[in-house]
Amino acid sequence: MAEVRANKKVVFKDFITGFPKESDMEVVTTDTVRLKVPEGSTAVLLKNLYLSCDPYMRSRMSKHDEASYVPDFVPGSVITGFGVGKVVDSSHPDFKVGDFVWGTTGWEEYSLITAPEMLFKIRYTDVPLSYYTGLLGMPGLTAYAGFHEICSPKNGEYVFVSAASGAVGQLVGQFARLMGCYVVGSAGSDEKVSLLKNKFGFDEAFNYKKEPDLNAALKRLFPEGIDIYFENVGGLMLDAVLSNMRNHGRIAVCGMISQYNLEKPEGVHNLFYLITKRIRMDGFLVFDFYHKYPQFEEITMQYIKDGKINYVEDAAEGLENAPAALVGLFAGRNVGKQLVVVSHE
Amino acid sequence: MAEVRANKKVVFKDFITGFPKESDMEVVTTDTVRLKVPEGSTAVLLKNLYLSCDPYMRSRMSKHDEASYVPDFVPGSVITGFGVGKVVDSSHPDFKVGDFVWGTTGWEEYSLITAPEMLFKIRYTDVPLSYYTGLLGMPGLTAYAGFHEICSPKNGEYVFVSAASGAVGQLVGQFARLMGCYVVGSAGSDEKVSLLKNKFGFDEAFNYKKEPDLNAALKRLFPEGIDIYFENVGGLMLDAVLSNMRNHGRIAVCGMISQYNLEKPEGVHNLFYLITKRIRMDGFLVFDFYHKYPQFEEITMQYIKDGKINYVEDAAEGLENAPAALVGLFAGRNVGKQLVVVSHE
Ligand SMILES: NC(=O)c1ccc[n+]([C@@H]2O[C@H](COP(=O)([O-])OP(=O)(O)OC[C@H]3O[C@@H](n4cnc5c(N)ncnc54)[C@H](OP(=O)(O)O)[C@@H]3O)[C@@H](O)[C@H]2O)c1
Ligand SMILES: NC(=O)c1ccc[n+]([C@@H]2O[C@H](COP(=O)([O-])OP(=O)(O)OC[C@H]3O[C@@H](n4cnc5c(N)ncnc54)[C@H](OP(=O)(O)O)[C@@H]3O)[C@@H](O)[C@H]2O)c1
Repeated sequence: MAEVRANKKVVFKDFITGFPKESDMEVVTTDTVRLKVPEGSTAVLLKNLYLSCDPYMRSRMSKHDEASYVPDFVPGSVITGFGVGKVVDSSHPDFKVGDFVWGTTGWEEYSLITAPEMLFKIRYTDVPLSYYTGLLGMPGLTAYAGFHEICSPKNGEYVFVSAASGAVGQLVGQFARLMGCYVVGSAGSDEKVSLLKNKFGFDEAFNYKKEPDLNAALKRLFPEGIDIYFENVGGLMLDAVLSNMRNHGRIAVCGMISQYNLEKPEGVHNLFYLITKRIRMDGFLVFDFYHKYPQFEEITMQYIKDGKINYVEDAAEGLENAPAALVGLFAGRNVGKQLVVVSHE
Repeated sequence: MAEVRANKKVVFKDFITGFPKESDMEVVTTDTVRLKVPEGSTAVLLKNLYLSCDPYMRSRMSKHDEASYVPDFVPGSVITGFGVGKVVDSSHPDFKVGDFVWGTTGWEEYSLITAPEMLFKIRYTDVPLSYYTGLLGMPGLTAYAGFHEICSPKNGEYVFVSAASGAVGQLVGQFARLMGCYVVGSAGSDEKVSLLKNKFGFDEAFNYKKEPDLNAALKRLFPEGIDIYFENVGGLMLDAVLSNMRNHGRIAVCGMISQYNLEKPEGVHNLFYLITKRIRMDGFLVFDFYHKYPQFEEITMQYIKDGKINYVEDAAEGLENAPAALVGLFAGRNVGKQLVVVSHE
């Protein structure tokens, strides 16, 4: 007889508008889970170790009449997202008990994954496995593909990154420094600004909340203008950037977190500069770059071993603290990559 | 002794804000011109035949504190712009009397061109020379390079063109049809809509002034969505297009004429779709594609000879009517390419 366990989980209560709140989720231990995959399936059973808090999850908390780019959460069901887990049972030929994987899982102690082909096997266990929620996971690949594939960077170019101390931003800045670019980042606290300059090696950084005039701040830090903008926030920042771009500049549109909780997005007024400065603005989704993951993992592991990349994560302990951790992204409470520790092993 | 002639011209009075008016320009015949280039120069003297009215000229009527992408007009001086002329004297080895050229000239009967290297020699005189203000000139190259170089079109794709009956738009639509695309255009009158469908071979067209809901109009005409948007107008239309783009769509940002006379540009709200639909938005200026002119001219001449391209121009007779013709662009009074006939030979 297979072991049966209580399975604590974070349940999505109901669709929301505006800013998410902790009370939009509920931590419950009502179900039990059998630690065995069903007979005749090709599933794996995961023990979840680390869960990733990602801004795109906000979109899944809203009801969409037309299908969105990611499916809506199901009210009353467990939250799903990226995470790192350990295989505790498997009937899939590619996975065996004891394997570590990352990919989409549930916000719960144990998850049955019925399409394990979608999981990535973790090849390097000589780094903290939590890195696979960030530096070596989806946000890392986002930074890597977004910067190298979308921005067409060249040595010596002027690069600006917003939400720069976060999971994606801290890596974009470091990839840009490794390419020999001049890099400036913006972030929402002096502590983060100091991280950018002292830990991640940004050439300059500023606290956007303390700048009465974003346009003036960018002019000060980019007297020659911006070649590459890695866009994480949207809204007012985008408008200020557009007036400070150089001819033939590129904008990788990765995220617009300042807009995710608004009823109606703010208007962007300076798009005419796209023409006069011949700017390319390119939206992208990391999902289109999964085939680059092995190459990215290889390169990034080497950077880590050579001490060429620094990484800061912000770990919330326990599923009980997962709702607050997720909600905190939208107030900038995370310092570095926000994750939730379900279990250290 | 060289002949001296009166030289009627259109003078720019003073910098403006808002919509341009005829009274912002003045037609005068105060100067005379000597029909000979100065001794020791490498200039040419042009008799101007056809002048081009182009939307970008509006920008030159405003005072810019920072240098803009085109120089401001000089109050009290003659308006300059694209035109077609005949060489009546030359001390430049590449140009001889009787040559026809197109390029930047003055809004006057005769212009002394001191840097004739910037002029294009007209190689085909078996088409109306006025075509070199449009179909075979700057707007033609804009349509050609903008569509083929920026939009990466593929056979069978869904293409939308705004300001579609104008100088650039009518050609973009026809280039797209020649590529086997499905093409819809918008324009500001029923007469123009009928031109689009019956003369230029657009699959569909609509009068945007009669559509209470642009989003609904685009949904109706593009049930599968838009792959390529050739952007000529900006503002509300851009927002409606963004919600109707398909995944991996492309937007060539050519112009935003609906914004040129506003004190503050309207806000564009739907940019988040750039990410979820992985849209590329690419601003461009025709000046960057001048090296493609010979190839473009060759191909387009062949289309004309084969009867594969139709062309509609709107000619104002005489310099006296030039201010009204220019101003008319911003009210949509032109039907097809707006030009001014200074002299038929
Ligand atoms: N395209 C893709 O495939 C893809 C994949 C992953 C992530 N993304 C996007 O990338 C961006 C960064 O994601 P991440 O995972 O690295 O998150 P993160 O930066 O680690 O966390 C979010 C940060 O956004 C900032 N923020 C929150 N509200 C803001 C506001 N109103 N204005 C400006 N900044 C605000 C906060 O930092 P401050 O203290 O600095 O304000 C917060 O710490 C997000 O927009 C996300 O949606 C896109
Ligand atoms: N990037 C470049 O290098 C480049 C080069 C050339 C031209 N352009 C741009 O391309 C666009 C078309 O130029 P064109 O020479 O072909 O001009 P055009 O279309 O021949 O003439 C301008 C037309 O714009 C439309 N229009 C005027 N005000 C409008 C408004 N508020 N909203 C919507 N439509 C409006 C009118 O047509 P309706 O009756 O249909 O409203 C008018 O006939 C312009 O935006 C221009 O600036 C860019």
